[in-house]
Amino acid sequence: MAELVRVAVDAMGGDNAPAEIVKGAIDAVNECKNLKVFLVGREDDVNRALSGLTYEKERVQVVNATEVIEMAEPPVMAIRTKKDSSIVKGMYLVNHGECDAFISAGSTGATLVGGQVIVGRVKGVDRAPLAPVIPTRKGPALLIDCGANVDAKAHHLVQFAKMGSIYMENVMKIKNPTVGILNIGAEEEKGNALVKETFPLLKNCPDINFIGSVEARDIPAGTADVIVCEAFAGNIALKMYEGTAKTMMGVLKEGLTSTFKSKIGALLALPSLKKSLKAYDLKQYGGAPLLGLKGLVVKTHGSAEAVEVKNSILQCVTFTEQNISEKIRENLASD
Amino acid sequence: MAELVRVAVDAMGGDNAPAEIVKGAIDAVNECKNLKVFLVGREDDVNRALSGLTYEKERVQVVNATEVIEMAEPPVMAIRTKKDSSIVKGMYLVNHGECDAFISAGSTGATLVGGQVIVGRVKGVDRAPLAPVIPTRKGPALLIDCGANVDAKAHHLVQFAKMGSIYMENVMKIKNPTVGILNIGAEEEKGNALVKETFPLLKNCPDINFIGSVEARDIPAGTADVIVCEAFAGNIALKMYEGTAKTMMGVLKEGLTSTFKSKIGALLALPSLKKSLKAYDLKQYGGAPLLGLKGLVVKTHGSAEAVEVKNSILQCVTFTEQNISEKIRENLASD
Repeated sequence: MAELVRVAVDAMGGDNAPAEIVKGAIDAVNECKNLKVFLVGREDDVNRALSGLTYEKERVQVVNATEVIEMAEPPVMAIRTKKDSSIVKGMYLVNHGECDAFISAGSTGATLVGGQVIVGRVKGVDRAPLAPVIPTRKGPALLIDCGANVDAKAHHLVQFAKMGSIYMENVMKIKNPTVGILNIGAEEEKGNALVKETFPLLKNCPDINFIGSVEARDIPAGTADVIVCEAFAGNIALKMYEGTAKTMMGVLKEGLTSTFKSKIGALLALPSLKKSLKAYDLKQYGGAPLLGLKGLVVKTHGSAEAVEVKNSILQCVTFTEQNISEKIRENLASD
Repeated sequence: MAELVRVAVDAMGGDNAPAEIVKGAIDAVNECKNLKVFLVGREDDVNRALSGLTYEKERVQVVNATEVIEMAEPPVMAIRTKKDSSIVKGMYLVNHGECDAFISAGSTGATLVGGQVIVGRVKGVDRAPLAPVIPTRKGPALLIDCGANVDAKAHHLVQFAKMGSIYMENVMKIKNPTVGILNIGAEEEKGNALVKETFPLLKNCPDINFIGSVEARDIPAGTADVIVCEAFAGNIALKMYEGTAKTMMGVLKEGLTSTFKSKIGALLALPSLKKSLKAYDLKQYGGAPLLGLKGLVVKTHGSAEAVEVKNSILQCVTFTEQNISEKIRENLASD
């Protein structure tokens, strides 16, 4: 049997903790024989969530952590002072080599800060980007960076492009993934100072399959497999994607239920409609990895339910088995 | 009778020029008695488009311009060299006081550059932002700036906030419009260097109704009437809005037509669905004004058809009658 992949799970983070988090973790353990999970959180709460669930006891371990970092807490201070929180303890399991990965649906800020200061970056990586996999008309794409490092420099973006390519090739199995830079026009002379400085660096980078600028309007259509961006712009693109999809669904629902006739129509059309829209469910790909760290850190949505938690954990298994951190270290060391 | 509002129209710009542009202009003339349009373009082409249309001859004037600026041309060079193009001639009509406003569905770059260098900025305005009105769940909102000035500074964003407030209050008739700054989190300490520098300036600005940070995901829900942003971020938010809506509509259509049952359902639900979705038609508000110029310049979509052209022209009438440029001059002169 291969060595078990060990994933630490923040059992206390997110809107549905601990019940959905614990359930998702157990679902992952039951689906993947090559996995052990460490449920980090208040022992009593975690054990209560575990009661009634069936699983192999030796592949599930509860790690007691008495504190919880709340969503609104300033992240740096929280990481520094709450040493017995589920996030800090989970991160240390990775730092000490007791776990390969850590996932949390809790505070994004604390997860990002903890990843950088506790887990630590791979040698050669200057900044660790948050890189969610998003759905497009042509399949999954990686938006890198979406919030970890505002005001990044051009050479950081080049590293993001390399790390993103390695992730998409090895975890999402897209051969020679295309890389675009998020821009406000398709022409090479368009863009802000950062994009203009980064463009030629990407163009001359032999390790990636660079295809030029990608406009935000082309992202949902699936124009590139990896979209490189500075975190402020990337976060806006990601949130606008989520917000527009949510609003459109609301409008759609309103339209379908506004009259008796439309309700009958909705009943008839719903199965086909759901099937088409399922491809746009942001939860199917699991959470957003924080790349370039010594272990994998994954941030899932605060609203994550069991299925997203399960997918995020399975993503950690592929990541670890594919030895992504080592591949990133090798690739970036050659800079 | 009040003085006529005089609007110069680029009859050669956009995918549907000159036919749809000319038709939209004539529709506007027929709808608004207080309007005269100047159709700028190749005389023969414009006259051919006019033939068969009914209108008051003295309120429609054709201005011959033999050249056309193409979409792909570098804007600065095009404005400098194509002196007899519809964009350059139309802009000079405003600069010389022969027209109050100019609209184009042609090259965005040339329209932005021409606006700044030919029409010219109002005294006190440092940069002229492109500010499209976008639909939200709660009605129209203004996204300012969406592409005119990348890498703007904090004091520019404060001017955008003031100009946007004046526009929404006077043209869109929203009393004491709320102003938010586009950010990657709701907390005051979030953001990049530019947002952190701008936030306290907006907070302490007595002329606007500042409500703090707005996340991109909250824009479609209608969280603020005016959303202030640097052009690169604003352009990404706008294009992502358009791109996601377009992709979602495609997915929706695919779902509704995939089976016999869903097609029947679609037939029944379509009238209600169309009614709900109509509120999200980007074309209803006309084009995006370039604010802070001595006359109004409006950029409409390259794909604009007659109805959008008409709405853009009517928007110019309100703008001119409300004396917005003068209000901006007075407000910004006090800085």
